Amino acid sequence: MQPVRGMKDWSGDEAWKREYVLERIKDVFQSYGYEPLETPAVEYFETLAAKGGGGEEIKEEIYYFKDKADRELGLRFDLTVPTARFVASNPTMPKPYKRYAIGKVWRYDRPQAGRYREFTQADIDIFGSPSIWADLEILEIAITVMRKLGFPEFKIRVNNRKILEAMVLASGIPEDKVIDAFRAIDKLDKIGWDGITKELQAKGVPNYEKLVSIIRENNLEKIRGELEKFDVGRAGLEEIDGLMKLVREAGLEKWVELDLTLVRGLEYYTGNVFEIKAGGQWSCGGGGRYDKLVEIYGGRPTPAIGISFGVERVIQLMEDSGLFPENYKPTVMYIAPIQAEKEAWKIRQKLIEMGIACDIDLMERKLNKQFDYAKSKGYRWFLIIGKKDLEENKINLKDLETGEEWKIGLVNLEEIRQILENSR
Amino acid sequence: MQPVRGMKDWSGDEAWKREYVLERIKDVFQSYGYEPLETPAVEYFETLAAKGGGGEEIKEEIYYFKDKADRELGLRFDLTVPTARFVASNPTMPKPYKRYAIGKVWRYDRPQAGRYREFTQADIDIFGSPSIWADLEILEIAITVMRKLGFPEFKIRVNNRKILEAMVLASGIPEDKVIDAFRAIDKLDKIGWDGITKELQAKGVPNYEKLVSIIRENNLEKIRGELEKFDVGRAGLEEIDGLMKLVREAGLEKWVELDLTLVRGLEYYTGNVFEIKAGGQWSCGGGGRYDKLVEIYGGRPTPAIGISFGVERVIQLMEDSGLFPENYKPTVMYIAPIQAEKEAWKIRQKLIEMGIACDIDLMERKLNKQFDYAKSKGYRWFLIIGKKDLEENKINLKDLETGEEWKIGLVNLEEIRQILENSR
Repeated sequence: MQPVRGMKDWSGDEAWKREYVLERIKDVFQSYGYEPLETPAVEYFETLAAKGGGGEEIKEEIYYFKDKADRELGLRFDLTVPTARFVASNPTMPKPYKRYAIGKVWRYDRPQAGRYREFTQADIDIFGSPSIWADLEILEIAITVMRKLGFPEFKIRVNNRKILEAMVLASGIPEDKVIDAFRAIDKLDKIGWDGITKELQAKGVPNYEKLVSIIRENNLEKIRGELEKFDVGRAGLEEIDGLMKLVREAGLEKWVELDLTLVRGLEYYTGNVFEIKAGGQWSCGGGGRYDKLVEIYGGRPTPAIGISFGVERVIQLMEDSGLFPENYKPTVMYIAPIQAEKEAWKIRQKLIEMGIACDIDLMERKLNKQFDYAKSKGYRWFLIIGKKDLEENKINLKDLETGEEWKIGLVNLEEIRQILENSR
Repeated sequence: MQPVRGMKDWSGDEAWKREYVLERIKDVFQSYGYEPLETPAVEYFETLAAKGGGGEEIKEEIYYFKDKADRELGLRFDLTVPTARFVASNPTMPKPYKRYAIGKVWRYDRPQAGRYREFTQADIDIFGSPSIWADLEILEIAITVMRKLGFPEFKIRVNNRKILEAMVLASGIPEDKVIDAFRAIDKLDKIGWDGITKELQAKGVPNYEKLVSIIRENNLEKIRGELEKFDVGRAGLEEIDGLMKLVREAGLEKWVELDLTLVRGLEYYTGNVFEIKAGGQWSCGGGGRYDKLVEIYGGRPTPAIGISFGVERVIQLMEDSGLFPENYKPTVMYIAPIQAEKEAWKIRQKLIEMGIACDIDLMERKLNKQFDYAKSKGYRWFLIIGKKDLEENKINLKDLETGEEWKIGLVNLEEIRQILENSR
């Protein structure tokens, strides 16, 4: 029997790599004072649908079902919606509320290479701060995560929803066509400039040529004057100029890049938007400011901003660029008892207590079979605890990589840790 | 809007306690050489049903649904079934395959206090070893987890399925009533001895009085002779005697207790079974040997044994007994900039780089509001980075718990770490 179509078992080295990445991401999130939030995998359909205006369309894109009491439910498709629900229903929490969430989400997409119907997001979000400092913090954390994971080159692309709107208006496109225009531009990576032009034509968006030429030029300074003619343009400029100034002061400009082509979907964003690019065709994360979402869930007006890492994509990019260090998984020592099981298990308890992870024979196998097993598991350290050696209070450590051997005194187990550490 | 009925958001201190417990459990699992396995939350219904013989009954107890292609699916109700599926479909992995899995599972139970429809299990299992050493390892790990979590008193109750069967047969109950007898005894905690007697009567189990009296006496030595008359009895005695001998040799007997009343459900167990008790009415985990399950999933004959912690119950028991240490969540320092935002953010970057978690003003608030926020978050350390102090290359650290203050030289940020460490 197989895993469900579009989903995947993560085992062995793949699972260790996930562990490595998730632990590092979590460390960074915690180091910036974020606290964990775990919400259920299952939400009421009403909650899931509210984000998109409450319509039924979303049913096609999610795992939707009814429970035995005929409640309409669905598996969450992101971590932002459940969090907005949580914040809305807990209005008295001290603000800002800064939480991280790392968890599985589910989408009923067409399965394709490297895209799964169950995947993992790692999010940070700040609720309650309208300040540009919150925008800076989100960017700084995203940059710190990418650096800690060892990405030598990456960019956070930044744009602003209000500037996008002002560009559309400045092109002479009427307000009721703004969404159509956004939707077309958002597909740039998939359909290219010709595709965008065709889609804008097809949707009957007037003056699309000007919009395409503005965005294609991708030069904020050149259109600044035109954007300033609109309220929404001035507001957007203040937000993006403010953020870029703080980015420079914080010494982060190397990793941040203004990009007027960036839309980030037709979601709930209201201000600055972000996308993380590190080579490859895909972004490995993104986010932005969404000051209206908590209200949709019945909460008080609550400014909000966040960013989400697509964990499988991060791992794929790290894999492609060879960014996993040799020790991405813990060192495990293998213990082979020879007619000295009782003593071997006691010594193992001590070694584990000392912080040395140890596997041991569980199959009552001959020594050569145990060597084979240790090699198949990629273990480097092989400790033989044999009856004869024990008579001299000794045990025998082998480095399977170099072939080196040591006789270790039983009173001196600390020596083992030193050998392991010196060999890293 | 609320979480789905029977499910729960974990936030704030509750979420930190989960984090504390899960990290410790994971550390122990890894220290014994177990590797992670993550399987999808969603499985084919066929996979979920196979464990119980493939029947439809299970639909009432799980979240069952169809996807848009009419595939029958369900949310996993434990972590053992998906793992057995995985092991069955990956027959060439080196054996023993030792994996841990920590994840959510879902059951459509009647919601009650402290029981949720979404809850977390933390499992270890060994596939491929028929040896009693595997049984010992599972017990030793369970004991190590409980000790690491600080439980001063707990017991792993141990019984054996073959001995249970032999007791039933020795009572003169025919083989076709063995399951009915197990089912009744399994309810001891819920319905007591009178309830068991009534149920056995109602099911028409002959000679039930003798069975009840044997089990009630709970004395293996007294019935050893009778059990030895049956093949299954001799086999069970060999397993349990073998395990108890190893338990004594490993110095673990203090935490292990033979208990003939233990059944552990009508599941797939075939040999020794375990249950973890640490005060309170509930067990907080259990497991045992299940040598036939991988075959049910189409795999090669693969002996298997494991144990599962019910994470919410473990946390509840720790809470009830006050086992969480003061520092169950990370220390976070709060930074209040006074007309020195740029400098404050740079200093914060350095402190985070040094391993000191830091929150900072994101609201452009006055100092007294920042104090209030820091207190509401339970932060102990409050670092004021002010324009005037900076002119003398100083910053000002306050201990909100003792009222103590320090002027720290900017060249000497390491002093901050020392102050924090000395105050623990």
